[in-house]
Amino acid sequence: MTSSPDKPLDEFSLIRRYFHHDAQLAGQDDSVVMGPGDDAAILTPPAGHQLVMTQDTSLEGRHFPADMAASDVGYRCLAVNLSDLAAMGAEPLWFLLSLTLPEVNEDWLAGFSRGMFELADAAGIALVGGDITRGPLAVSIQATGAVPAGLALRRSGAKSGERICLGGVTGAGLHGLHLWQQGCRHGPAIDHFRRPQPQLSLGLSLRGLASACIDISDGVLADLNHVLEASGGLGATLDEAALPLDAAILCDCDHEEQRRLQLQGGDDYVLLFTLRDGAAVPAGCHVIGRVDAQPGVRLYSLAGECRPLSATGWRHFG
Amino acid sequence: MTSSPDKPLDEFSLIRRYFHHDAQLAGQDDSVVMGPGDDAAILTPPAGHQLVMTQDTSLEGRHFPADMAASDVGYRCLAVNLSDLAAMGAEPLWFLLSLTLPEVNEDWLAGFSRGMFELADAAGIALVGGDITRGPLAVSIQATGAVPAGLALRRSGAKSGERICLGGVTGAGLHGLHLWQQGCRHGPAIDHFRRPQPQLSLGLSLRGLASACIDISDGVLADLNHVLEASGGLGATLDEAALPLDAAILCDCDHEEQRRLQLQGGDDYVLLFTLRDGAAVPAGCHVIGRVDAQPGVRLYSLAGECRPLSATGWRHFG
Repeated sequence: MTSSPDKPLDEFSLIRRYFHHDAQLAGQDDSVVMGPGDDAAILTPPAGHQLVMTQDTSLEGRHFPADMAASDVGYRCLAVNLSDLAAMGAEPLWFLLSLTLPEVNEDWLAGFSRGMFELADAAGIALVGGDITRGPLAVSIQATGAVPAGLALRRSGAKSGERICLGGVTGAGLHGLHLWQQGCRHGPAIDHFRRPQPQLSLGLSLRGLASACIDISDGVLADLNHVLEASGGLGATLDEAALPLDAAILCDCDHEEQRRLQLQGGDDYVLLFTLRDGAAVPAGCHVIGRVDAQPGVRLYSLAGECRPLSATGWRHFG
Repeated sequence: MTSSPDKPLDEFSLIRRYFHHDAQLAGQDDSVVMGPGDDAAILTPPAGHQLVMTQDTSLEGRHFPADMAASDVGYRCLAVNLSDLAAMGAEPLWFLLSLTLPEVNEDWLAGFSRGMFELADAAGIALVGGDITRGPLAVSIQATGAVPAGLALRRSGAKSGERICLGGVTGAGLHGLHLWQQGCRHGPAIDHFRRPQPQLSLGLSLRGLASACIDISDGVLADLNHVLEASGGLGATLDEAALPLDAAILCDCDHEEQRRLQLQGGDDYVLLFTLRDGAAVPAGCHVIGRVDAQPGVRLYSLAGECRPLSATGWRHFG
């Protein structure tokens, strides 16, 4: 509406320069019949599979700090979407990127696309389209994955008595944000915050073994509650002693703060899942409790007490 | 990052209230195995088809005016994406919506979703996921459609000698914007601007008949040039007398302004296509010229002169 033809670089040139990633498109993925450059991409879905689709927008100052390196912004914004594919047990296929930029900053664009493609290549997902508009910095990514028909993991399949598992430690994401806000720029919690690692391999390995699965974006309690609600209003009892803790990550927190971060921190992007009876616990995962028929979540504390926990973690509109 | 659990309505409630559109999901489309509410939607792609995917972001003040009715914003933002599906000859299947809102305004949300679903239902496309975040008003939509394998329309197939056609009148979109900016809120050009009509049926009917196709978002000249460039650097000669004009829409413009709007106006969302030799011109479409081997675009004027035209329409980064 307000654009003009005399910009130093127009949308087409920007897309061609920073987002035509031929190694990716020409490489592992022959499902991409035609990538960016036309009105839409043309794609061949894998036979016998269902698709899973997710879309998330990340805004500067809300989902990532204004002073985060462009390469980390690119990495993180894609990671958040890939984590949703992981939680469905899906293999990544394609993504589209809508990038809103306040100005054309080629250094920033080069860093952003480098970080984004670093993760995209590692995950085997191809950028197939999108657009660039001018406005407050925002990154909207839509990602598509594939699962053999009927094998997608959902939130809704948990059953009373099943084990509740975590794919890794929690609390690092929020702790990293807190440290960042205090001016810290290095260390393991900062790394978790800058570049969360979507658990794609774990998600694939859980097909048929997990009865329900979700990724931790709102915190263990809030996301566990999503599973329990979706599974028909079940409850759970967690074992405080079993909550995985990386002391090196949360080293500067007291016990109370550690527990709060582990249970209510957000942005961890590890998988929380319930295991079908008889299924072995995958390597690197931790059984943290069991599903109950009694609604609500209880914590069996180190002191041997069982106390109810509030259901809320981070419920965001933001 | 900065969200809190005490908002009057959180993201989950907003999505449930305004974007769970059961009539749509339960209705015509059994490809939707699971819609909104999990980490991702689960979808069954139609056998023997390729998918086409597009994503576009619309920002308040840039792609739609701040004082446009919410229902028209919802309609228009989806229409822009459906027009890309139309240009590929695709049948609409699914879309995801990332909505960024400065505040929770339930009247606005109700209007927005009403306008959006009005078009979604008419087009037979199901909302299957997305998110809501807090920030400057922005609407990012990713739409997916299906075409029988190998039949997608592209920009790249035009051949010298073929007829160039328009699916309807052009100029109304930009003229409507101009009138809007002058305070006008009613009339045919305003209607085009508020609620562009994606030519989905025309797109389907062009499979196998059109050698190249694009939708007019940047203006006839700019979009024709996209086709000519993608088709190997061809040229074209247009016939001024053949340019379709709706005098009622451009009634308050002089001849020069009419021609400028017709050729360089943007946001019309009618299809421009080249017809294979022997193919009949579809009803309601207009042959406006022919593809040439000689690069550049020329206009054969009403006065019988043939003069070169500048290639630029609206090249936007914005």
